[in-house]
Amino acid sequence: MISTQATIITIGDELLIGQVIDTNSAFIAQELNKLGVSLKNRIAVGDKREDIIQALETAAKSTDIIILTGGLGPTADDITKPLLCDYFGGKMIVHEPTLAHITNIFVNIHKRPMIERNRKQAEVPDVCEVLFNETGTAPGMLFKKENKYYFSLPGVPHEMRWLMLNHVLPFISKQFVTQKISHRTLLTAGIGESFLAEKIAHFENQLPSHIKLAYLPNFGMVRLRLTGTGNTQDALENEITIQFEELKKAVDEYLVTDEDETMEMVVGKLLKSKNQTVSTAESCTGGYIGHLLSKNPGSSTFYTGGIISYDNRIKTEFLDVPTDILTTVGAVSQEAVEQMAKAVREKMNTDYAVSVSGIMGPGGQTAEKPLGMVWIGVANREKVFSKVFYLRFDRLRNIEVTANQAINLLRLLIINKI
Amino acid sequence: MISTQATIITIGDELLIGQVIDTNSAFIAQELNKLGVSLKNRIAVGDKREDIIQALETAAKSTDIIILTGGLGPTADDITKPLLCDYFGGKMIVHEPTLAHITNIFVNIHKRPMIERNRKQAEVPDVCEVLFNETGTAPGMLFKKENKYYFSLPGVPHEMRWLMLNHVLPFISKQFVTQKISHRTLLTAGIGESFLAEKIAHFENQLPSHIKLAYLPNFGMVRLRLTGTGNTQDALENEITIQFEELKKAVDEYLVTDEDETMEMVVGKLLKSKNQTVSTAESCTGGYIGHLLSKNPGSSTFYTGGIISYDNRIKTEFLDVPTDILTTVGAVSQEAVEQMAKAVREKMNTDYAVSVSGIMGPGGQTAEKPLGMVWIGVANREKVFSKVFYLRFDRLRNIEVTANQAINLLRLLIINKI
Repeated sequence: MISTQATIITIGDELLIGQVIDTNSAFIAQELNKLGVSLKNRIAVGDKREDIIQALETAAKSTDIIILTGGLGPTADDITKPLLCDYFGGKMIVHEPTLAHITNIFVNIHKRPMIERNRKQAEVPDVCEVLFNETGTAPGMLFKKENKYYFSLPGVPHEMRWLMLNHVLPFISKQFVTQKISHRTLLTAGIGESFLAEKIAHFENQLPSHIKLAYLPNFGMVRLRLTGTGNTQDALENEITIQFEELKKAVDEYLVTDEDETMEMVVGKLLKSKNQTVSTAESCTGGYIGHLLSKNPGSSTFYTGGIISYDNRIKTEFLDVPTDILTTVGAVSQEAVEQMAKAVREKMNTDYAVSVSGIMGPGGQTAEKPLGMVWIGVANREKVFSKVFYLRFDRLRNIEVTANQAINLLRLLIINKI
Repeated sequence: MISTQATIITIGDELLIGQVIDTNSAFIAQELNKLGVSLKNRIAVGDKREDIIQALETAAKSTDIIILTGGLGPTADDITKPLLCDYFGGKMIVHEPTLAHITNIFVNIHKRPMIERNRKQAEVPDVCEVLFNETGTAPGMLFKKENKYYFSLPGVPHEMRWLMLNHVLPFISKQFVTQKISHRTLLTAGIGESFLAEKIAHFENQLPSHIKLAYLPNFGMVRLRLTGTGNTQDALENEITIQFEELKKAVDEYLVTDEDETMEMVVGKLLKSKNQTVSTAESCTGGYIGHLLSKNPGSSTFYTGGIISYDNRIKTEFLDVPTDILTTVGAVSQEAVEQMAKAVREKMNTDYAVSVSGIMGPGGQTAEKPLGMVWIGVANREKVFSKVFYLRFDRLRNIEVTANQAINLLRLLIINKI
């Protein structure tokens, strides 16, 4: 494996009082990991000069790549840029392409005059290489000192991501990655992490030391990733392909996709390939399934729309769920979700439909219906199928897991597995 | 400002490959902050002896309280406990109350035999004070060295939380005479960070040095936070209250809330207080507004439901948008969103409605309608109002910002500002 090591330094008081949960670090860590660069540590510091400098010095002691995020916004609490300018012995100059870009954003997009503070965002230390930021007003910066590379990125997640993907990772890849690296990723659903580990123990045990298996559980599904390193790309690709085929066989009945894509992307691709459509009828998820089905580009070709029947009245008026179902077996029932799926599919005239009704918590449970109980229904032009789940997370997590399980049931119906 | 300072050290390879988002640190930071203990930094390291030791040494250089989480589980890759034992010069002994507790968990709860790995969890260094963990099998530990306190806690979030609340915070509170600290937070909408900063520059400039202002932008809104420190709580509260009132006046026309809550929570509270309801008609956000309105507990009292009219056919069939509107001015138009809001409000019989239609990208723009153009409509029983926005983010971010802007327009209608 490659010996290059990196440190992430996240800057901002908001991280030290716990107001913000740091998701940037996880993204950066994942991407570095894919290149085979190992993260030695992550340091979070506040907007304090001496703490930022101390973090820079600590990082430089043991790693070659230092990635800083945060502290580049237009407001007065941002001290990172002048600090870096001093630290690397430069002076501030205006970066003309960035100034033109910021001006364009204000004149043509915001349609508002620029103020001095905005203009200042185009200033950079003359000792850095500017990483041009197409997605925002704060430029990224690359400094080099004693063979160590310091990347300074804005803390806004989508801007940080864009700069990582378009500047930082290509640079690191060119500069540091000498061994070849290859990944294969698959997604499983319907089996817990420990059972999956038990099931594929024989596979994991026979892996050579230069191919590693990682478990990445999320939303009640488990993603598996093989990462191999080697000296020649062809030999490595061959070897990892063979191992990946073995892994796919071992998890066959739970396999959702052998690519690095989400459940909703898999379903979207399936529907597009068949020229088919889906609609949704959501109670407890309140629109989250619709959101997942429509969050990727091109979803208008297969996602027609949905009814969010949060109130029971809407279930009756828009989805024809009989009031006596609601008063006897209740809204969280097989009868209710099957009717919901059937009705929305017919009314929106789609090939498939998915419906959910459940108790996401906190509270709302009864003696017969525990917290986390959720019914999911799926329908096509011939039949309706439903299944009950019992979740044990907090409200938001329950919503996310329900939506993912619902889309998985839809997938199983599309591929005739139910 | 002289006050007690702390460091958080999170241990675990999973944090360095980005598999896990660290939510523990945010919790610990919040709780320490409430006690007036300021967090100097957070360090994440992998399961590597030398890295953990380096982190301990770095932390001890500048802080009095060091909180470690993770690395105490039953699996083979956990090295923290023996390392701490060596580091503080102890030897491992069995902690009998913990052994009895673990035995009880296996015999009476898991109903499984204990294995050696589980028994080992009851072993602790003889130089620590055991922080008895009622919620799990890994005991917490407190070490003291050269007037610094080291708390070692398991990484499982609910166990870490219990130990923080029941052992660590009471101890810190008693041991350290700290300065008092106080926060005030407000949320603004409808003004960018740099314009806001310009607008309140006079306020910021007159702040005494022991009161700081922070900008926390997200989803096209900006949160402002005042943090003050002082020796007596009453004097500090008085002073910061006066400053906060000034700040509120300065941002008056953009003020959403003077509490630390989200836009959708503000709207939920408003509607609940008036016993009123809202419905949604979403095109480009595909259900995300419904999700935001229903993600918090208790939302069924005000969120009735919605129509996700992703396909234009649904706009016509379910929301009575005339086809000649769609073929002339198009779905992304004032006419379309106003009809959508009006129709869903009437059909679902709610007090308010909100509707959106836009071009979230990538692609889909025309000569007249640029990428990121979105129309938002809101309606009550008397009128319909609509507004056009031009966004410049990626697809997902455009969806999030649209949803937040839509909920803000709804808020403005509810409070009679439009």
